[in-house]
Amino acid sequence: MTATVREPAFDLAGYLECHAENVDRALDKYLPSANLRPESIHDAIRYSMFAGGKRLRPILAIAVGEACGAELDVVMPVACGLEMLHVYSMIHDDLPCMDDDDLRRGKPTLHKVYGEALAILAGDALNAMAFEMLVESGDTEIVKEVAQAVGTLGMIGGQVVDVESEGCDVTGEDVEYIHRRKTAALIRVSLWSGARVAGADEQTIQLFSDAGWALGMAYQIIDDVLDVIGTPEQLGKASGADEIHQKATFPKVFGLDESRRQAEEYADEAKANLIATGAEVSPLCTIADYIVTRYH
Amino acid sequence: MTATVREPAFDLAGYLECHAENVDRALDKYLPSANLRPESIHDAIRYSMFAGGKRLRPILAIAVGEACGAELDVVMPVACGLEMLHVYSMIHDDLPCMDDDDLRRGKPTLHKVYGEALAILAGDALNAMAFEMLVESGDTEIVKEVAQAVGTLGMIGGQVVDVESEGCDVTGEDVEYIHRRKTAALIRVSLWSGARVAGADEQTIQLFSDAGWALGMAYQIIDDVLDVIGTPEQLGKASGADEIHQKATFPKVFGLDESRRQAEEYADEAKANLIATGAEVSPLCTIADYIVTRYH
Repeated sequence: MTATVREPAFDLAGYLECHAENVDRALDKYLPSANLRPESIHDAIRYSMFAGGKRLRPILAIAVGEACGAELDVVMPVACGLEMLHVYSMIHDDLPCMDDDDLRRGKPTLHKVYGEALAILAGDALNAMAFEMLVESGDTEIVKEVAQAVGTLGMIGGQVVDVESEGCDVTGEDVEYIHRRKTAALIRVSLWSGARVAGADEQTIQLFSDAGWALGMAYQIIDDVLDVIGTPEQLGKASGADEIHQKATFPKVFGLDESRRQAEEYADEAKANLIATGAEVSPLCTIADYIVTRYH
Repeated sequence: MTATVREPAFDLAGYLECHAENVDRALDKYLPSANLRPESIHDAIRYSMFAGGKRLRPILAIAVGEACGAELDVVMPVACGLEMLHVYSMIHDDLPCMDDDDLRRGKPTLHKVYGEALAILAGDALNAMAFEMLVESGDTEIVKEVAQAVGTLGMIGGQVVDVESEGCDVTGEDVEYIHRRKTAALIRVSLWSGARVAGADEQTIQLFSDAGWALGMAYQIIDDVLDVIGTPEQLGKASGADEIHQKATFPKVFGLDESRRQAEEYADEAKANLIATGAEVSPLCTIADYIVTRYH
């Protein structure tokens, strides 16, 4: 009788928790202390940076870095820079003149606690500080690529069209344009950066980059789906906000079932690219699965 | 009889105009075209970037670069990055929740024309784009030094304390703290960058850097003075705004005459440091004189 040894399932929750803690520790080290003058902005920055984020972008960079053989401390400054960019964009997106959100992850948004002026300045500071982190890699290409990913042809461009599309009739093409830029561009460059900082070859970097686009799209589509079907407890804020603000979303254009189907297709595309690298990508594939199943 | 040949006075106006045009041309090349999607933000960015700024910071970087023997096209991307940072900070400072200014250089401020959301996003985009410009130098130290100069221990820190000091009793120490960070830090790093990108030695870089601090202080003090004594035509906006907003200014703390005296002292300090470099610094010394005499 032969015993079949079944490989234990990859412990995604443990993996995410462990790396989120690593990122938190690094951020705590990099961010100015809350008792450094001007205390208010350092306090505000820490309020938003430690508001319970999932650390998805830095963890993706770290997971790719690991898959390409980089040590954690080589990837970490870049990973933290990516998280600073994500958090700054959330702070500014939440402002009254943008999405006007009072809650994020179950906590009052930054401008509700510290006022609009400090929220704008805290976002501005994180934007600049991110580049200080990214340049720690010593790689000028990383600074350039990330700057473009968060610029007017990337994240900010997506946010502009997102805000301008509120209340408008949008096509599938429009909503794909928005999601690719608003969300997928930064997730894409997170995977790209992880491979780049690890010194991977061009072909490998390209495969991780392609996986990043697909993963980013899957992530934002499911975010749209969750806004429709999630409970306020799951979302950490009121659900149905997209419909109230007449946002351009996948469910609005394609319906819930077709949105889910497209998200799964993107996740499959991501996994195919990840596997094609030939690297140890099981954590990343598990994250891809998690991204599209987190609504269950 | 010996003929005394008098050296023609340095033509500052011509020098400033010529380099402002060089900067404008470079910015026009670097900035995304206004007919590139999303058009609104590219249009907004160009509205603010070409609103008639003096280009002081890039010209200072260029003048130092020239003094240290650098070609114009080596300094230009860094010079344009510095101007983008200056303009983004003005866009955000003008917002209703900050200084609430309707006019800048005689034109409506960005948020008055394009709305607050687009003004915030245009500033954010310029902040990131600046680092894309700075990294063109291939020098990671420039990215790091400038990021710090515009961060919470520099420009943003100064703006935070400036906003928080409105209506408060302030000491000379407070107002010096604000001005060093809010204004002098970026001017200082403009001179520092010009020397650095030109490959100057450590001692020379330090002297230009020290000159930059002094020049930055002189500039902001005279800005405060002009807000009191200038006409709306000279200022391109209403005068007396600092008093209305109970801003922390040098005239408020020291009076007009003592403020002017301190500005002149800073300008002399700047010139002493410039001359100590042994480089051809007559354009820079003339700029220093201009900065403290422009209220005449």
